[in-house]
Amino acid sequence: MASLITAAVLVIGNEILSGRTHDTNTHTIAARLGEKGIVLREARVIPDDHDVIISTVRFLSGAFTHVFSTGGIGPTHDDITAECMAQAFDAPLHTHPDAFRILEAHYGADQFTQARQKMALIPKGAALIPNPVSAAPGFIIRNVYVMAGIPKIMVAMLDHVMTGIAGGPPVLSRTVTTSVGESYLAQGLGHIQADFPDLSIGSYPHMRDGKVGVALVARGTDATRLDAAEESLNQLVASFNLR
Amino acid sequence: MASLITAAVLVIGNEILSGRTHDTNTHTIAARLGEKGIVLREARVIPDDHDVIISTVRFLSGAFTHVFSTGGIGPTHDDITAECMAQAFDAPLHTHPDAFRILEAHYGADQFTQARQKMALIPKGAALIPNPVSAAPGFIIRNVYVMAGIPKIMVAMLDHVMTGIAGGPPVLSRTVTTSVGESYLAQGLGHIQADFPDLSIGSYPHMRDGKVGVALVARGTDATRLDAAEESLNQLVASFNLR
Repeated sequence: MASLITAAVLVIGNEILSGRTHDTNTHTIAARLGEKGIVLREARVIPDDHDVIISTVRFLSGAFTHVFSTGGIGPTHDDITAECMAQAFDAPLHTHPDAFRILEAHYGADQFTQARQKMALIPKGAALIPNPVSAAPGFIIRNVYVMAGIPKIMVAMLDHVMTGIAGGPPVLSRTVTTSVGESYLAQGLGHIQADFPDLSIGSYPHMRDGKVGVALVARGTDATRLDAAEESLNQLVASFNLR
Repeated sequence: MASLITAAVLVIGNEILSGRTHDTNTHTIAARLGEKGIVLREARVIPDDHDVIISTVRFLSGAFTHVFSTGGIGPTHDDITAECMAQAFDAPLHTHPDAFRILEAHYGADQFTQARQKMALIPKGAALIPNPVSAAPGFIIRNVYVMAGIPKIMVAMLDHVMTGIAGGPPVLSRTVTTSVGESYLAQGLGHIQADFPDLSIGSYPHMRDGKVGVALVARGTDATRLDAAEESLNQLVASFNLR
């Protein structure tokens, strides 16, 4: 069995924790990783705090194959991600020549202010992630992909990043939806999970128009096994519908 | 200065990490905590994995005043939050008599199956969190509030929990929105942050209809200081609009 490719998402930003902004980047990245067969193991939201960023980046970088960070790479005083990434990996910050050139061309030499030049400060050794929306690049340091927080820019950077990352065996899923209550299904579901230890069987209740429903989801990489599990799930549901 | 009341959010669920479900609970809790003057310091999404849940709960419980968890308290095999919380705090799981009574009354004695009885298994010493939507209660163990994952139920549980938690001084904010680019504002913003070390000054760019705008946000607990900061922010913006 090929070894698992794992990932973490790191959202950096006080505005998420204060409740001001609803983070959508985590969900976007999670879905893309799933398609690519990369297992997202954890997502964290942390504040714009040097020590917290540095220690969290070090931990996640060591624990997972890839780390996707968003936020904090703009020109203002609260954009401290680049300097923290540099410190986390003991790399000096330097003016990246390509980043400088890209930004200078974007703004025009006479409008390329000191604040804007700050966005060319990248940890030494990092590779740039192009930003087709607003020029200021993200970067890759070790196994950390440092992207913008604005969703539209983040998505463009993610598109670029994903082309350079090897995927794992695609994770496939089969979903059986029913209005039979979870608590009726629970025992049978436990048996199905025991019969398919190579799959992950989840039970996800939801409410819609005041009615409870359940999505039974089998996830795994082997389509034949998934088909068999789906058949078992359908039989389980049918056994209640027939009563 | 009163000591800060801090919090973490812990979202437990494979379905968030797989990209299947978009978590909205974190944002809901973040906003409520902000209103109450409780500082949300971190949010984590972790999988339905015993060891990860136990170690994460222990860490967050020790690091912050309050921990709000969501997910994994239903009747199926993948609902392992209660047993993990029990292990995290070395408390045995037991059938909570009130939870048992509530669930039995809800389902009727003849329909109160073994799977449903599982939802009355609560760590010993934990207090119940009522569930006005679907009966199965959450619980409070130490400083951890263990709530359901379905947003509608989570909100009802949160309403109950928040009435029992002391708030801090409410965090107030002033927002100045402008179409002046962040990079023009950056230097002046840095000065304003230096002038108001007791406030948190954030700069949050956004894109709408293809145009970039910025929200400059001052946050803190002293209304007079916030008014002064807002005045400074307005002056900064005006100095560019006049050019």
